[in-house]
Amino acid sequence: MVTIKSNGYSIFIGEDVFKAITSFLDKNAYSSYFILCDENTLQCCLPVLISSCPKLASAGIIEIENGETSKSLEFSSHIWQTFMENKADKRSLLVNLGGGVVSDLGGFTASVYKRGIDFINIPTSLLAMADASVGGKTGIDFNGVKNSIGTFAQPKAVFVQPSFLMTLTERHFQNGLAEIYKIALVNDKKLWEDLKEGLNAEILVQKSIALKNKIVLKDPFDKGIRNVLNFGHTLGHAIEAVFFENKYGLLHGEAVIIGMVMESHIAWQKKMILKKELMEVVSVLRESFILYDLHKLESETVLDLMRNDKKTSSDKFYFSLINKLGSCKTNVEVSRKQVLKALDYYNTLIG
Amino acid sequence: MVTIKSNGYSIFIGEDVFKAITSFLDKNAYSSYFILCDENTLQCCLPVLISSCPKLASAGIIEIENGETSKSLEFSSHIWQTFMENKADKRSLLVNLGGGVVSDLGGFTASVYKRGIDFINIPTSLLAMADASVGGKTGIDFNGVKNSIGTFAQPKAVFVQPSFLMTLTERHFQNGLAEIYKIALVNDKKLWEDLKEGLNAEILVQKSIALKNKIVLKDPFDKGIRNVLNFGHTLGHAIEAVFFENKYGLLHGEAVIIGMVMESHIAWQKKMILKKELMEVVSVLRESFILYDLHKLESETVLDLMRNDKKTSSDKFYFSLINKLGSCKTNVEVSRKQVLKALDYYNTLIG
Repeated sequence: MVTIKSNGYSIFIGEDVFKAITSFLDKNAYSSYFILCDENTLQCCLPVLISSCPKLASAGIIEIENGETSKSLEFSSHIWQTFMENKADKRSLLVNLGGGVVSDLGGFTASVYKRGIDFINIPTSLLAMADASVGGKTGIDFNGVKNSIGTFAQPKAVFVQPSFLMTLTERHFQNGLAEIYKIALVNDKKLWEDLKEGLNAEILVQKSIALKNKIVLKDPFDKGIRNVLNFGHTLGHAIEAVFFENKYGLLHGEAVIIGMVMESHIAWQKKMILKKELMEVVSVLRESFILYDLHKLESETVLDLMRNDKKTSSDKFYFSLINKLGSCKTNVEVSRKQVLKALDYYNTLIG
Repeated sequence: MVTIKSNGYSIFIGEDVFKAITSFLDKNAYSSYFILCDENTLQCCLPVLISSCPKLASAGIIEIENGETSKSLEFSSHIWQTFMENKADKRSLLVNLGGGVVSDLGGFTASVYKRGIDFINIPTSLLAMADASVGGKTGIDFNGVKNSIGTFAQPKAVFVQPSFLMTLTERHFQNGLAEIYKIALVNDKKLWEDLKEGLNAEILVQKSIALKNKIVLKDPFDKGIRNVLNFGHTLGHAIEAVFFENKYGLLHGEAVIIGMVMESHIAWQKKMILKKELMEVVSVLRESFILYDLHKLESETVLDLMRNDKKTSSDKFYFSLINKLGSCKTNVEVSRKQVLKALDYYNTLIG
């Protein structure tokens, strides 16, 4: 088992991680346990967890629907109501067993119930393992705006069981892989090279958690350098929003990959990377991921969504852009024209 | 103007406090302002505030209904919706202009909007000045349980304008005075003596803020010694809840005064104070406050509410009790019988 120290808590990674959960539960005298799952993790992960950690057999199980729509005030109320009906007190523990939706929602509801009860994260998707379960951000969506209500709240511990990755579909595995490619591109040339060679999942998760952890520890309240993590996300978010509204259902990672291709092109337009580097990024991403067809996408819709996201009416945008492979510059001014060129480039690329 | 340093922020007290607000607004480049008021402060305090601090003329005004029922998820949603419709961003400021309901609700909604925007408190009731606006607790009521959803979040500053006290009815002034008598009894014999002599309101507010501040700074997350502040509240809360449900509308301070009389009697039963001290407490409180008639109160209802409040089914209760005038012991075990005796004592007392 590998242990990574984060902001006041530890992240445990390995096949024998259930032992660490048991010893965590033994050390902390909680008055009661609650486990938050979605429909998938209830079926695929909960039975394994409970049989490996018998203390959790007494836990109250709270089930939410799969998907982003569960990150709502309605589901938050449902969780608080369940806490109350089952007499959860300040010494109760919430176990978030699931992907980013579960840890975002669970972390938020725990962090404000009685002004904060303890919670731990057991991420079950690659995206949650590598990204969402580290960083101390919780949140729900409100009025159509993602994560607009939330807290900075650290879990008491994060337990990563790599074998949970086997419960994922190929598409959801790729969804998480996208963030790992991103974090390599903005911060770790060596990991980028390793990714090209192929890595086993456990090593992959260890490396990306260690990397993200290094960045968030420098900027726990998201005031500056954590912005490098936004590479691929300015355009990625807008594209995700288009398809979210249109119910095409592009996954977050799928949109981020598209965003990374486009934003690499912008970096090249701004002479921040060489043509050769752009070609490398594009060919590696193309080889590992599906680049979805966006021909039907109206470029004005994308620009509008970006303006909305940044709450600006101007045609100047600020991006985090790679300035070589493994390095990223934040707050780079980008014009409307440069964005449009990048959209065109993408469309030409996928033919 | 008097300045008291608290947990990362300052409390300014005095007739010239509007100057301090103006200089605070000048120093901090906020992108937009919002002011949360209730029906009373909208009428009585907002015009004075805006004419004294012209920068706030552009503020979005959010009005809530008077009273505890506004501390709800529904009103929280209303505030977040208003923030969004008016494009509040991470650099927006919320000004809480009102009593404890306004600062509890406003502090909570600000502390989770976009994971926390700045807020300042301008308390307008004596209770809020002396008690609620210091301590870093925010919260709303949920499922009938007071402050069950909330955060620990510090305001950026607290500005106390004593002349706002003149907008209060006598009854609401007394309501705040109750907490000042309490804090004197548990922590400051000298203040207790001063109260018997009579103090002007501004000095009163200064002294009680300084005293509460001293206690909360030692225990910011409410884990231990802050419990001395609960004197009078174990029975007080239960009595408040009875009358809240019956819609008699006993104010918080009115219930706490009754609680203090009863709990002083329990302290005497447990030989923690002398008969002479009990008599002094009772005669001082009786002289300064109305002791409401509780003959119709079922003692079993009170016991049930106390069990419910503490989430216990047992007949052992744990109180914070004075052990002399100006000192308090927390976590004192009290039996059902002792509680019943105290209720009887109170009923005999008021005849």
